[in-house]
Formats: sequence, C-alpha cells, structure tokens
Amino acid sequence: MPKIKPKNAFYAQSGGVTAVINASACGVIETARKHKNKIGRVYAGRNGIIGALTEDLIDTNRENARSIAALRHTPSGAFGSCRYKLKSLEENRREYQRLIEVFEAHNIGYFFYNGGGDSADTCLKVSQLSETMGYPIQAIHVPKTVDNDLPITDNCPGFGSVAKYIAVSTREASFDVASMAKTSTKVFIIEVMGRHAGWIAAAGGLASSEDTPIPVLILFPEVRFDRQKFIDRVDQLVKQHGYVSVVVSEGVKGPEGRFLSDQGLTDAFGHAQLGGVAPVVANMVKQDLDLKYHWAVADYLQRAARHIASKTDVEQAYAVGREAVRLALKGHNAVMPAIKRVSNKPYRWKIELAPLDKVANVEKMMPKNFISRDGFGITRRCRDYLAPLIRGEDYPPYANGMPRYVRLKNLPVKKKLPHKFEV
Amino acid sequence: MPKIKPKNAFYAQSGGVTAVINASACGVIETARKHKNKIGRVYAGRNGIIGALTEDLIDTNRENARSIAALRHTPSGAFGSCRYKLKSLEENRREYQRLIEVFEAHNIGYFFYNGGGDSADTCLKVSQLSETMGYPIQAIHVPKTVDNDLPITDNCPGFGSVAKYIAVSTREASFDVASMAKTSTKVFIIEVMGRHAGWIAAAGGLASSEDTPIPVLILFPEVRFDRQKFIDRVDQLVKQHGYVSVVVSEGVKGPEGRFLSDQGLTDAFGHAQLGGVAPVVANMVKQDLDLKYHWAVADYLQRAARHIASKTDVEQAYAVGREAVRLALKGHNAVMPAIKRVSNKPYRWKIELAPLDKVANVEKMMPKNFISRDGFGITRRCRDYLAPLIRGEDYPPYANGMPRYVRLKNLPVKKKLPHKFEV
Repeated sequence: MPKIKPKNAFYAQSGGVTAVINASACGVIETARKHKNKIGRVYAGRNGIIGALTEDLIDTNRENARSIAALRHTPSGAFGSCRYKLKSLEENRREYQRLIEVFEAHNIGYFFYNGGGDSADTCLKVSQLSETMGYPIQAIHVPKTVDNDLPITDNCPGFGSVAKYIAVSTREASFDVASMAKTSTKVFIIEVMGRHAGWIAAAGGLASSEDTPIPVLILFPEVRFDRQKFIDRVDQLVKQHGYVSVVVSEGVKGPEGRFLSDQGLTDAFGHAQLGGVAPVVANMVKQDLDLKYHWAVADYLQRAARHIASKTDVEQAYAVGREAVRLALKGHNAVMPAIKRVSNKPYRWKIELAPLDKVANVEKMMPKNFISRDGFGITRRCRDYLAPLIRGEDYPPYANGMPRYVRLKNLPVKKKLPHKFEV
Repeated sequence: MPKIKPKNAFYAQSGGVTAVINASACGVIETARKHKNKIGRVYAGRNGIIGALTEDLIDTNRENARSIAALRHTPSGAFGSCRYKLKSLEENRREYQRLIEVFEAHNIGYFFYNGGGDSADTCLKVSQLSETMGYPIQAIHVPKTVDNDLPITDNCPGFGSVAKYIAVSTREASFDVASMAKTSTKVFIIEVMGRHAGWIAAAGGLASSEDTPIPVLILFPEVRFDRQKFIDRVDQLVKQHGYVSVVVSEGVKGPEGRFLSDQGLTDAFGHAQLGGVAPVVANMVKQDLDLKYHWAVADYLQRAARHIASKTDVEQAYAVGREAVRLALKGHNAVMPAIKRVSNKPYRWKIELAPLDKVANVEKMMPKNFISRDGFGITRRCRDYLAPLIRGEDYPPYANGMPRYVRLKNLPVKKKLPHKFEV
C-alpha cells in the first residue's frame, strides 16, 4: 500500500516586523520538524503572502537546526514581510485561485500566517477556501503586532519588547536630563509608535516606578491634544522636579482632528515637509516656555531592538508559533492561539484558542481606565497590566561586541507552475 | 603631636553626561576610600563646578559602599552636571577667589574634574591656582566625552558605549528595513550626535561586518554634503540591495557651509521651526527618488543607553577615575590619565599620563584616512580602531524588567562661608 505523503505547511510573515516575530517562526518550524509524519516540509513565503502568489517559496528544510534556533534571538522578518491585504473573494477571485494553484502544486495543507489585524483577515479568508473553493486547508493565525491591538488575546507578541525598549530608554534619557537640567536641557521628548492606540506610549509610564519616580508626561492618541493644558503641565513639572520627560505618540491629534505631526511645514523653497510629532511638541515648549529641550524619535529602533527584548515576550512569541502547529495537528482551522492571563501576581499565562472570525478586523483599544484622569499618565490598573509584559531579559549572543543575528540561506523551492503571476 | 588632617577631595562632572561617567565617579570614590590617610572625604559638586562656586557640596561619604558601587552601572551624572566654562583669571578673578574660599573652608586639596575639552581647560586653570593665587591644589582631569575628541588619549570614556549603541541599533533597524523593503520602506535614516567630528557616525559603519554585510551609507560632518552624489548613491544601493541604511551626523553641512538641519522651516503661522537633519535627508529621498523611508533621531537615547554599554568602555571609565586618584596620591598636578592602545589584536590598553596643557582646548579630529574615498563609508583602518572600543557587554542589574539605576542621597555638606555667590 503506498504511503500517503504528509501535507506540507506554508508559513509567512506579514505587516510591520518586530523584535520577536522570528521567535514565532522558530516555534512553528521547530515544532513542525518534530511531527514529520504529519507535516512534510515547511515552506516560507518570500515577502509574506506575495511569496505564495508568485510561487516564490523558501524551503526552510534547507536550514540546519542551529540556524532555525537562532531565529529565536533575531529581530525582523527572516523571510521578508509585506504590506499586502487580500481583497475579498468577490473582489479578487483571481488571487484565491492562484493561491490554490500554488498550494496544490506544492502539496500545502497547512497555512500559518504571522501578523496583526489585517493579516488575521487574510488568514480568515484563506481558512474559508475549503468551503468557498473546495480546497482543503487548515489556516492558523499566529498573532504578532507591536500595536497590541488584537482582540481576545491578553496581549500581542512583539508589544512587550517595544514596551520594554520605550520604558528603559525613557528612564535612561530621564536620568540624563535630570543631570543636565540645572544649566541646560529641561524637557526631553520621545516620539513613539502607535498611530491608533496608546499602548506603546503608555509603556513610557513604566520608566517611572515607586523606587525610581520620574516626572513622565504622556501624550496619548486617545486624548485630544490641548496645547495650553500641555504647556501648563510641563511648566508645573519643571518647576517641581527641575525637568520632565514627555512621551508622545505619533498618533496624537490636535483640536481640529488632524495629526499634530501634520503642521503644514514648508522649506525655504515652499516644498511641503514631513516631520515627526516630537519636533512639533518641542517647538511649542520653546515658543511658550522658552525652555531648553531635546527630542528623540525612536521609529524602527523600538521595534527592532532585540538586544533589550522582554523575556516574557520572547517566550510568548515562541509559544504562539508552537501552539499554532499543535492546533493544526489537532485538526483546527480558522483559529488563533491567544494568550490568556491566568494571574497577575505572580504573572501566569497560558495559550488558549480564539476563533479567527472574532479576531479579524476587530481593533482592541486601550481601556479608558488605563489613562489617568488628567489625560497625561497611566493608572495603577494600566501599570499592573503592562508590568509583567516587559519582565525578564533575553539577550542575544554577541561576537566582537555585536549581536549575532542569523541570516538564513532562504533557498527557493523549485517552481512547478507554468505561468507567472503579477501582484 | 597633633595629627595633620588629610586634605579632602572635590569631584565634579561637567558637560554632556554619558552612559559611563558615573563609572569614573565610582573609580574616583572607591579608590579614595582606600586611602583615607591621604584623602579625607570626597565632596562632589552639585551640578558640576557650579556646586563649588555656590558652596553646594555633596558629601559622598554619606553614601554606603553599595550605592557607590552601583554608580558603575548607572548612566547620567549622579551629582548633576553643568555647561559652565570658567573664564580666564584675568577676565573673572572673582570666580577663582571664590573657588579658593570654598576649597579652603572645606580643606580641599584635590580637584578631580570629569569632562571633555572645555572642562580640561577649567581643570587646567584650577591646577594653576597654586602658582597664580598661592593656594595649594592638585588638579587632575578625568576624561569623558561621547565626542571622542580629546587629544593624546587613544579614545575617550563615553564614546565606546555610544558607538556600540549606534552600531547595534543600525544593525537592528537594517534587519527590519530589509524585511519590509519589498513592498514598503526602502531607506532608513538614523541621525546621530557629533556636531564637529564624525566619530559617532563612523560607528554606524560597524553595523555592517564581514559575516553580516549591510548597505550602510554614512554622512560625515567632515564631508561637504552633495545632494546629487548622495541621491545617486542611495539609488544605486537600493537597486543593488533592495534597501539602504543612512547614518547621518547632526553636524553635516550643505554646500553653503550651513548645517543641513537648518532649512529655514516655517510652520503654517510663519514661525521658524527647529528640526533635525534626519527628516531633511528623508525629504530629499522622497522628493528625488520617491522611495518610502523611515527616520529615527537617537538623541539622548544614544548617550544614556547604559543597558547596552560597551564593557571596554565601562572598564576604561572606571580605570581613568581610579588612576586619577593614584596620580594625585603620587603628587601630580595638571595631568590627565590617558588611554594608550598597546596592541590591536589582541586589544590591549594601559593608562598613561598626559600633561593637561597639551589636552585643554585641543580638538582631535577624525583622521582623513578613516573615511572611505567616496566619502560615504569607513576604511579598514577606522574599523580596526573602532572595533575593540565596543567590545564586551556589561549589563546593569534588573528588577521587574527595568534596569536598577542608583539615585544617591546627595546630602549637602554644611556650608561654612557667610555669603552666597551668584553664577
């Protein structure tokens, strides 16, 4: 009797990458390798779902165990990511047909998609291919996003490490400003990510703790910016402490509802200039209070900073990858492994199952009671939520003073389809 | 026969602080404590030399050994720093007289000044008080500056840690951009410190190494910016690698000799706006090549980042503090402990003595042969110089996911002088 060849798996990374998304990839691949009777090979999409559409698959089996293990401590997306959202079946049947062609050609029966809210939507659509187009597939979403805005899961892998980076950096810069404040800088401003929700900005509040109090003022995207209120508070904190650190979310909006960063700046030639929100806030401090300031924009540094990743985050990122494979092996489809907080003190968590149709296209906003009454800080409840997520250090290995991050060979799987596909 | 009371020491931090200046303080205080027969108490100036002028002294003897030891892993200036340069004796005799009054009142015979070029000048002036004003003092300069621009010493404590931070951050962000480049960001720009010399920008070049090559393009303050040449190179690198990371020094100047960051930006109301150089460069990339970009400004994060300090740097910072005290005990005046590179492979260094009049007001520029012929990169020689300075990790202790940095009690020494002094 001929042995049935086990189905292969497709894995892809989607959207903005993080310090720990590769830890999830590591969890997927290492777990799949333990079940070769059920999962044949793991093919990764080069540049996310685009790799599936263009039949540009990477054979992860050509990577040795050591390289795959090193993914756990390597930031970024090892197979390339993309910003590409599949349209609905009605709108673009062509893409789904192509996916099925590619999956069929490469005997793919498992689909692991590692991303945020938009990606969950793509994953859900793929999970329905069995029903809608008669192609048998099990699609499991692997959660990832620094924005921490996926529903059901208590938190999102990727967020904890950004939170830790921002908390640590804000504390360090605050120590710096405090030393300089007597004769120089009194206001330090750091711009952080989070266009829609203030989760990352909130993490700046962790810079201050009971044993190390620091005057931190947070500007959340959830709170409409009021220049006078802000300036008054800066003035008060500088008078009281000698200095203040301002954590400003890139998504802060002014009274007219426009992004505060969008100030209609023009250069000497009248060209429109795109700037960040930090210099805008800094200029207000200068104009209204004439205080010396410094500002930083963390940008990609915050989400790539594997060197200061949260151990909790790394463990959870690995766990959701591992559990995604286990769920597939149990026959699940259209689900996502979610993190469930079991207790806060001590912090305990486990993985449970979330139905994907409850995840896709739902954005989890920060609860109102996480922001202090005055709109400039975090509450005890917020602090209790955030604190365990940044706990623990998980340093990468170093050589000659630099972290040793792995670059995979990323060898292509031989194409089997006769025609190309344009995306 | 009455025992002669040993002279006390004055220690102060000056100018911009660093991730490791407190390690030098730790070296000074721990070493002084081992020689109580020669050095009575160590008094620190609150906010640098201003503390001496205003008789605002901190009694470091009131801090326990554990707190002093913790200075070694705490960034910033624990006693406060200042930007304040003593004028010449001819211009402001009043200040020198005041210093002598304060020193005399507190039996101070040793002066340890921890700073960069300007501070070396102040220290030199103080060292001459014995000669010029008949007050016996031994003044030793303790080198510190992220700018790495002090002469004689092979490198400056503080620089190695910034260099490591920039090299690591640039590598991490480059991994991030490489993952996104297919459908999103292709150019990442990071702005770094160094208004006069490109030492810190050069460190960005370490992001790329033989085992991890990365297309890094550096804009040095030493090289006059040429927009077309820059844009052509960005275009070429993106075509070749799919992405590029640009490290731009805040000190880059355009063809007219003006800082590139000074673009005459005005907001919607016509107010002049102060911005960084990173967004200026980003806008050029947008205008000329229409490539998607991201930009970061590291600002204080880079010099406060004790969490990723270079072990070499921490050891050297401690050593110059320790050696400053030893030099004082040997009877030296007007000197600075300097780092001498003994060999490169393996890296070995020792401390030797530099006469302060050869240090003060001399700026060490980056050698021309450290910058590659095209002006956008570093040479092998530069790499060999920089590499050992970022070597080794020296992590601070953590509690609940955050670094435990010490805050001293900083208790004041009782004032003895009848009148106040305005600075």
